Amino acid sequence: MPDPDRTSTSAPSASAPSASALSASTLSADRLRQARDLTAQAGLDALLVSPGADLQYLTGYHAAPLERLTCLVLPALGEPFLLVPALEEPVAQASPAAGLGLEIVSWQETQDPYAIAAERLPARAGVGVDNRMWAEKVIAFQAALPGGRQTLAGPVLSELRMRKSPAEIAALRAAGAAIDRVHARMAEWLRVGRTEREVGRDIAAAIIAEGHVKVDFVIVGSGPNGASPHHELSDRVLEAGDPVVVDIGGTTAAGYCSDSTRCYALGEPPAEFRRLYEVLLRAQRAQTEAVRPGITAEELDAVGREIITEAGFGPRFLHRTGHGIGLETHEEPYIVAGSARPLEPGMAFSVEPGIYLAGRYGARIEDIVVCTPEGGERLNLTERELTVLPG
Amino acid sequence: MPDPDRTSTSAPSASAPSASALSASTLSADRLRQARDLTAQAGLDALLVSPGADLQYLTGYHAAPLERLTCLVLPALGEPFLLVPALEEPVAQASPAAGLGLEIVSWQETQDPYAIAAERLPARAGVGVDNRMWAEKVIAFQAALPGGRQTLAGPVLSELRMRKSPAEIAALRAAGAAIDRVHARMAEWLRVGRTEREVGRDIAAAIIAEGHVKVDFVIVGSGPNGASPHHELSDRVLEAGDPVVVDIGGTTAAGYCSDSTRCYALGEPPAEFRRLYEVLLRAQRAQTEAVRPGITAEELDAVGREIITEAGFGPRFLHRTGHGIGLETHEEPYIVAGSARPLEPGMAFSVEPGIYLAGRYGARIEDIVVCTPEGGERLNLTERELTVLPG
Repeated sequence: MPDPDRTSTSAPSASAPSASALSASTLSADRLRQARDLTAQAGLDALLVSPGADLQYLTGYHAAPLERLTCLVLPALGEPFLLVPALEEPVAQASPAAGLGLEIVSWQETQDPYAIAAERLPARAGVGVDNRMWAEKVIAFQAALPGGRQTLAGPVLSELRMRKSPAEIAALRAAGAAIDRVHARMAEWLRVGRTEREVGRDIAAAIIAEGHVKVDFVIVGSGPNGASPHHELSDRVLEAGDPVVVDIGGTTAAGYCSDSTRCYALGEPPAEFRRLYEVLLRAQRAQTEAVRPGITAEELDAVGREIITEAGFGPRFLHRTGHGIGLETHEEPYIVAGSARPLEPGMAFSVEPGIYLAGRYGARIEDIVVCTPEGGERLNLTERELTVLPG
Repeated sequence: MPDPDRTSTSAPSASAPSASALSASTLSADRLRQARDLTAQAGLDALLVSPGADLQYLTGYHAAPLERLTCLVLPALGEPFLLVPALEEPVAQASPAAGLGLEIVSWQETQDPYAIAAERLPARAGVGVDNRMWAEKVIAFQAALPGGRQTLAGPVLSELRMRKSPAEIAALRAAGAAIDRVHARMAEWLRVGRTEREVGRDIAAAIIAEGHVKVDFVIVGSGPNGASPHHELSDRVLEAGDPVVVDIGGTTAAGYCSDSTRCYALGEPPAEFRRLYEVLLRAQRAQTEAVRPGITAEELDAVGREIITEAGFGPRFLHRTGHGIGLETHEEPYIVAGSARPLEPGMAFSVEPGIYLAGRYGARIEDIVVCTPEGGERLNLTERELTVLPG
């Protein structure tokens, strides 16, 4: 759920899960063509895509997000090209991007790459920049393209990225199975007397060992820390009777993310927690069963929120129901009040209602669910009932 | 040197090196006051600082960079406040930011946080956004602050961040010693018959074991791969006689980064490589010895470039001499042709000339150097001569 940067762990050489056969290069030529068509439909002259998930999706190039400009320039008319710093040209040439027949334009240390991009675009070009482009690049492009219009590429690219192909679903399924294997081992680590941080270290190692190349986040919220949805790890020592929220995720060699939350208790938890948990479980089950093409994001959010509200915990469900997932842990579609987006086959997202009682404890249950023509397919299949460990 | 995101590894609970005593909270009230003064001097109404190193520097808050807006609003006149999503309020309250007496303003899932910020700023406000703010937030602020001027906060904040305090220098010195301990163990891992990836995995584990909480990057460029400055790891098997460029870095518990490159050979390398290496070593030594207050960034760059050019390798020195380092691996000041910035005591940066012969091999030698009143202090102290291993 939280920051992929802050708590990320990569093993430069973890074993590749089976989904690693997913080939960006075989898919990307189509994706570039589709993105170009959507760019034209959006009335934009070009998309400007810097390193990140969008670039990886379009070209297979997993480029370093550094201060030197690397940027895919994708004109609505004409051929796309990849602008790279000279010293990264060998890396770019060795990437799947080169296999797409993309022109690779390298710039020298004392050249202005923004001017190079601008020269190849129409005057007063309307451009869409990728949503996570750094402000320094956004503003440099504004200066290099005076009189033009600058908007976000997200509305164009998320139309593609949020509808997963069968190969992408397979990669997400493999990621789900990998994180399930970690949850299945939780009894090895969660014990009275250990700190959240000690447990978190073991979980991080297992995330790699069970089939990821990167740890994206590890939340171990024990006792009152479970009431903070974005708590990560602390030095709190686990106590008998503690409910513990464990929300973990990583990235597989194929580039796709996992994210699953389960709750544990170290011995029998307080009776009131049991009651809260039964409400939450009912809500989460109802929501995963309600997934089908045509239901809107806000309707799906309401399915769980109504159950939680009827039980008197409405104001304690502090966040939206979920987020899309793919090459990033958080992406479109968001399952949130106010979004009338109808779900479609191929969309993959979390269903993760939570109830948080400040100062006492909290609970959250999270599965990744794919919308299929027949309904929702859960990609996380470990037990959703509260798991009571010996403590 | 490369992407902190791509190859980062964190151990949620690595042991804290001694520099972890560096307290952001004791320093940050001063930093906020200094930043406010510089904001006023720059003619800006406010700085807008989203999660990242700038926010960490100013408030000690290591916030998650997520799609929900977290932002420090630092007006030139009036009191700063930290805008956070409601579900992250407990995390923000537990951070050093709360200890600064900063007002924490939380927003609910269905509110517009940009409007909340704008309401507290003057009409047509001139704002500086942090250099790495995501485009989606940059553009949302443009819409929420119509008629205003938007520029980068970098020129203001880098004035503070590039001049390190004694506590920051101590933290960088500890980071340098930690990465030196990893280079000192290289003979354990670099052997003929192993792949770069296998070696890289061992190095990553050692980066954590020797006193970092995060692996930022691991470059093992063997044989021809050494000629690509931003090569990372491949499945190439190390061969007898290979020169190998090893460029590695991580982040310590104190938040400061390490970055050091050394070259190794697996048995005696080609004679031409020896000649190239002697030129490079002479250049790098001359540059580290030339560091002193008042020399400009471009002059320091030229010291090494002239030696390499005289030896006939000028066009093969593909990049600038170095980059500043602190809470980020790459920050101001950059040691590059065209920068007339005079160096000052407290500035810390890499000195890392390189020579790259495409298709054959390359070499780079990198130390972090701090400018002191007396000259340069090298923070990396392992042997700079080529280390020839048994192979």
